[in-house]
Amino acid sequence: MQNETARIEAFSDGIFTIAATLLVLNLQAPTLNSGKLSSSLLSQWPHYFAFAVSFVFIGIMWMNHHRLFSLIRKSENTLVILNLLLLLGVTFVPFPTAVLANYLGKPEQRTAAALFNGTFFAIAILFNLLWRYSATHQLHDLDRNEAAAHISAQYAVGPALYLICFVLTWVSVAASLVMNILLAFYFAIPPYHASRLTHGRRRLPNE
Amino acid sequence: MQNETARIEAFSDGIFTIAATLLVLNLQAPTLNSGKLSSSLLSQWPHYFAFAVSFVFIGIMWMNHHRLFSLIRKSENTLVILNLLLLLGVTFVPFPTAVLANYLGKPEQRTAAALFNGTFFAIAILFNLLWRYSATHQLHDLDRNEAAAHISAQYAVGPALYLICFVLTWVSVAASLVMNILLAFYFAIPPYHASRLTHGRRRLPNE
Amino acid sequence: MQNETARIEAFSDGIFTIAATLLVLNLQAPTLNSGKLSSSLLSQWPHYFAFAVSFVFIGIMWMNHHRLFSLIRKSENTLVILNLLLLLGVTFVPFPTAVLANYLGKPEQRTAAALFNGTFFAIAILFNLLWRYSATHQLHDLDRNEAAAHISAQYAVGPALYLICFVLTWVSVAASLVMNILLAFYFAIPPYHASRLTHGRRRLPNE
Amino acid sequence: MQNETARIEAFSDGIFTIAATLLVLNLQAPTLNSGKLSSSLLSQWPHYFAFAVSFVFIGIMWMNHHRLFSLIRKSENTLVILNLLLLLGVTFVPFPTAVLANYLGKPEQRTAAALFNGTFFAIAILFNLLWRYSATHQLHDLDRNEAAAHISAQYAVGPALYLICFVLTWVSVAASLVMNILLAFYFAIPPYHASRLTHGRRRLPNE
Repeated sequence: MQNETARIEAFSDGIFTIAATLLVLNLQAPTLNSGKLSSSLLSQWPHYFAFAVSFVFIGIMWMNHHRLFSLIRKSENTLVILNLLLLLGVTFVPFPTAVLANYLGKPEQRTAAALFNGTFFAIAILFNLLWRYSATHQLHDLDRNEAAAHISAQYAVGPALYLICFVLTWVSVAASLVMNILLAFYFAIPPYHASRLTHGRRRLPNE
Repeated sequence: MQNETARIEAFSDGIFTIAATLLVLNLQAPTLNSGKLSSSLLSQWPHYFAFAVSFVFIGIMWMNHHRLFSLIRKSENTLVILNLLLLLGVTFVPFPTAVLANYLGKPEQRTAAALFNGTFFAIAILFNLLWRYSATHQLHDLDRNEAAAHISAQYAVGPALYLICFVLTWVSVAASLVMNILLAFYFAIPPYHASRLTHGRRRLPNE
Repeated sequence: MQNETARIEAFSDGIFTIAATLLVLNLQAPTLNSGKLSSSLLSQWPHYFAFAVSFVFIGIMWMNHHRLFSLIRKSENTLVILNLLLLLGVTFVPFPTAVLANYLGKPEQRTAAALFNGTFFAIAILFNLLWRYSATHQLHDLDRNEAAAHISAQYAVGPALYLICFVLTWVSVAASLVMNILLAFYFAIPPYHASRLTHGRRRLPNE
Repeated sequence: MQNETARIEAFSDGIFTIAATLLVLNLQAPTLNSGKLSSSLLSQWPHYFAFAVSFVFIGIMWMNHHRLFSLIRKSENTLVILNLLLLLGVTFVPFPTAVLANYLGKPEQRTAAALFNGTFFAIAILFNLLWRYSATHQLHDLDRNEAAAHISAQYAVGPALYLICFVLTWVSVAASLVMNILLAFYFAIPPYHASRLTHGRRRLPNE
């Protein structure tokens, strides 16, 4: 049974890996007309920031994808399509990253940050669609219901939090980016601890 | 026996994955001389459209390749060469995608759409060549003749439909692109349902 | 034992796959100032030619690498280093391909073709080094001596033939490219048949 | 147990492979206004040098990563994060490589070399963090303590040596690059021999 999802995982891993590595193509050696190379390199700081943030994001998305598919046992056509849409979102990431890198600290930075935060909002929805579909269509490993409940609890708050982050862009670009980074860390935490954080002492459905 | 085709599948998966991810390199952060970033981003819509369409196409081609090789058990030199030609077509996809993205909605869009539709026509032929060769050279898993018959039925109409789509470009660019997208969905449907769609109640050879 | 070389093969497969796919980045959508897109696309023929030739070359090199490692059973440090040098050559291929695509049919085409043919000459030597090292250091699967002898016979003539092809560049660029393509086909043929072709009826060492 | 780290290794292998192959994108076909293509190609020597050095570096880092994970048996969240940070460093390599290639032999070469050497200093620290964490958190294969001790001995001197190399940039750019290359060879040597080289006849902790 486990083999059924093996090739989906391999394909997805490939997409995550390549999208993460392509981010470096946004970093270009500066062409120097005058002045010092060091100051020219330093002035590219939004590029390094965007590169590092997006790389870690893709890495954390990969961890989450891995967690989901360690519980998903069966595969079928709709799951493959939903996964493909999620991967479309992941592959898109280098583009808003490049836009953010080019406009951060400049007059049009709000639009760039909105595109960036909006992308992660969309990806959060796609992650939820994939997870809920697999949950409601009995594609899960039934021996691990508790682990699944913790993921469900962690994911339930995802789209709402990313929506707040997206809206926050119009209040403060800096605050929205900080919140985006904090959200990434929240999804890096194993679901068991994460669901405690947001749901407090409340008992989870499957406990 | 199954291992015989494992390394071909791994190589092919790699090509599909990378070709799909490289599509994002066609999306460039706009350089802004004046005006708003948001309108500049929106004016790039043909790039997003072409990116999404080609990504989903490559994903569906990957699904199809996966289906074929779940039935192909034996490998030999000609099969490897035919597969290599198919992958050459897949690797080529980012180029017509870029051309379409650059010329859609502009005077020369017909040529761009013809290149785009023509590429998928050529790939449909290459898919058929690969499948027919494996069918006529006894490379199949004989226990799964019925599944193979459904694929044969689905594929038999492929090149003809893509040829119509290609010719349609000179009638209406928009209609040809819509047809191209519909064809992608047709090949996303599992062969069992797809062959019913096009062949109606007719009994398939192996039924 | 077989697992010893599995990760080297996976790493090598990755390099072959990515190098092959990156070739498409040499194909750029033409920017049109005036004239027709179709003629602009057609005038890029050296790019399509170079793309197709190099893609098939990398595919055939992958087939050969696969053949070698189906016989190599043990791994050690020097083998890893030699393999790394071979992969350095493979990764380099998109560069001479781009140079050839840019200068074919132009005054400086001889230099471009020499770089192209020279790259394959160097790769032929690296393939031989890898194979001979594994042969003389008892890293082979001893049950398959005959298959190894056929590869040795096919490879023995490789560097000499590629050297002729390289030198031929100064006689005729077209002839050298034709010879380069014919050599690729020669190495696509399974070693058993290939060694018959060049060594005629002579008995091979291990026969 | 061994499977626990299998997907981390696959993801890491992907990053190493793609980062190594993307290096070739720094090699561009020269655009020729006048003069000979051959001299134009030769004048790009810093690009070939930087390409070859960084490719071999990434290959050797891959070998080292492989060695570590052949001893690491268990996985957990912090290990995944530390590995992700290391891979962030690996993915970054094409950027300092491009900067070095563009400025080597020019007035601002010191800054470029400092960025290049500094990157490898940072990666040496990240390699040590990963290794020490796995050592102190009982994630090792306990049957292979001796092999682990040799790696620990080889790695213990890494950051210090790379710091010297980094500082050396301000004394002599050429000397610092030579030292950087020598250090790569030192980490290519199997840990058993390497630890003898730097630690002489001293007994290792676990001997």
